[in-house]
Amino acid sequence: MAVSVLTQKKNMPAGNPVERLLAATADDMARVNSLILSRAESHVDMVPELARYLIDSGGKRLRPMLTVAAAQLFGGGAGNAVNFAAAVEFMHNATLLHDDVVDESDMRRGKPAARMVWGNKASILVGDFLLGQAFMMMVETGDIGSLGVLSAASAVMAEGEVFQLAKTGDLATTEADYAEVIRAKTAVLFEAACEVGAMSGGADAAGRAALARYGLELGNAFQLVDDALDYGGQSGALGKNVGDDLREGKMTLPVILALAAGNEAEKAIIASALGKADASDLEVSQVVAIFNRHDTLNRTLEKADAHARTAVEALGILPESEMKTILADVVMHSVRRAS
Amino acid sequence: MAVSVLTQKKNMPAGNPVERLLAATADDMARVNSLILSRAESHVDMVPELARYLIDSGGKRLRPMLTVAAAQLFGGGAGNAVNFAAAVEFMHNATLLHDDVVDESDMRRGKPAARMVWGNKASILVGDFLLGQAFMMMVETGDIGSLGVLSAASAVMAEGEVFQLAKTGDLATTEADYAEVIRAKTAVLFEAACEVGAMSGGADAAGRAALARYGLELGNAFQLVDDALDYGGQSGALGKNVGDDLREGKMTLPVILALAAGNEAEKAIIASALGKADASDLEVSQVVAIFNRHDTLNRTLEKADAHARTAVEALGILPESEMKTILADVVMHSVRRAS
Repeated sequence: MAVSVLTQKKNMPAGNPVERLLAATADDMARVNSLILSRAESHVDMVPELARYLIDSGGKRLRPMLTVAAAQLFGGGAGNAVNFAAAVEFMHNATLLHDDVVDESDMRRGKPAARMVWGNKASILVGDFLLGQAFMMMVETGDIGSLGVLSAASAVMAEGEVFQLAKTGDLATTEADYAEVIRAKTAVLFEAACEVGAMSGGADAAGRAALARYGLELGNAFQLVDDALDYGGQSGALGKNVGDDLREGKMTLPVILALAAGNEAEKAIIASALGKADASDLEVSQVVAIFNRHDTLNRTLEKADAHARTAVEALGILPESEMKTILADVVMHSVRRAS
Repeated sequence: MAVSVLTQKKNMPAGNPVERLLAATADDMARVNSLILSRAESHVDMVPELARYLIDSGGKRLRPMLTVAAAQLFGGGAGNAVNFAAAVEFMHNATLLHDDVVDESDMRRGKPAARMVWGNKASILVGDFLLGQAFMMMVETGDIGSLGVLSAASAVMAEGEVFQLAKTGDLATTEADYAEVIRAKTAVLFEAACEVGAMSGGADAAGRAALARYGLELGNAFQLVDDALDYGGQSGALGKNVGDDLREGKMTLPVILALAAGNEAEKAIIASALGKADASDLEVSQVVAIFNRHDTLNRTLEKADAHARTAVEALGILPESEMKTILADVVMHSVRRAS
């Protein structure tokens, strides 16, 4: 990478920033986690079984941590932030359940996807249940403003998933289309998670806007890195699950940039592997070789870097604090994981 | 049927009660329908295409009509009721989209189900979009109490669908299990539709409770009739799509009653056809013959009748009005359609 967020801040405190975020939000997250457990309960056994299988499967719970962190940043007690954090995690998990059905994914977080254990039908319906529970938790706060932020996010996320589906395998997909997909399917929930956290913490309009922007740009960076990692990241090294996006026909930035830069032969190789569910590792490696020839994984990561810088800049208007430093470092960490 | 709601009220005004409800709510429903159209819009073409295909497919829009009718009953202007009515219809349509995927249904309202045209993936995601839009419309009212009613309904509906799925083909399913399934998957949305309508219309606590009860019992009656109609209704006559529930393994009341009353040979015939996707019309007719021997279709309709009577009784505390008469007659009509 030419200019990296990683090289901008030399004096980053020791320790993994996500670990530091975990420590700083531990008390509130204990309450969030207990709320998550209790709201996954149901007299219908399959509901908590399936929900907990996913929820307890080792996700980092980054989104709810951001919600309570944002509230802390403005000095507000956890209060509503605990409900909103749990609601955000339920919305995220509902999306994962539906996405795994839509993408026909076999694995999630290193173990069989819920749909492989309970089936597609239960995954769809338990996703719906989690979404309903998320809205109930939001309603309990009585905060109609935050409800507006999160319900809008819910609709935009689904719209983004449909847009991605409509663009599947579409060689004419533009960078602008891609930017819209990742904003809608990923960044908007990060944005909402941070924004409602700030609102719960008592932020003024400028503070709320700063955290919303921080979340949005963190989310964009996060998805760009994910999309580079799907092809092995900066190294372009092949490993487990490398090329899943290619086989699913997903028009991510490394593909779009390679189609724009490649010659006819290269484009033909990409087009032939794209959306081919049984594309071999050799075919995937041929496509990654084309990416490397045109530096599209690095260019994707540079774009992530730019979003990460914007996220950190958005925090600029806020007074210095330990939490502000952690939030800035978390962005840097999320970009670094692909290097 | 031994005692029928139909014979209780001799002086029913002329005209189909649903037509009279349509006429009485026409002005408000024009606003609801225009809101429904505008909120199915999206820059992602597939969203309005799929949503409108379903929404415009000739459903009666009974639920949103009940919402605006309940508001009118208490004299309130349409106001919030228009938003809630559109939201209720979106929630209902989201459920239909997901149900058709879960049930692998080919047809809906006499034409190919949306999933047969746009696929399961788009049906799941557009369902999610409609749910998100529903919550946005609710949030716009600022009425957190009604939001609570509808978000709870949303979670309970999904829970009911999972319960139904868990009970699929389970010969040990009880009448109480069945009552819980239909309450959750169907009646609770009718209950919520009427309750938030009453709230929008300015009902007091007793009026709100009356309308909630009316909606709940109407919903229970509605689903019982549907479940009898799936086997041809009172006549038990075979026609198009008769036996779908049997082939899907749905444990509806006619089946549960027949398993309880039948001898071993009859139980074996039912068990062998239940959940058999390619069960022949002959097999279905053998099962219906067993139903007729034990009168289980009539007994199901009698139960619907009892719920319908309770629905009408719930309106008893309210002063007489044209709308009250229409609402009572609508219940009777919904029971009558199976006779």
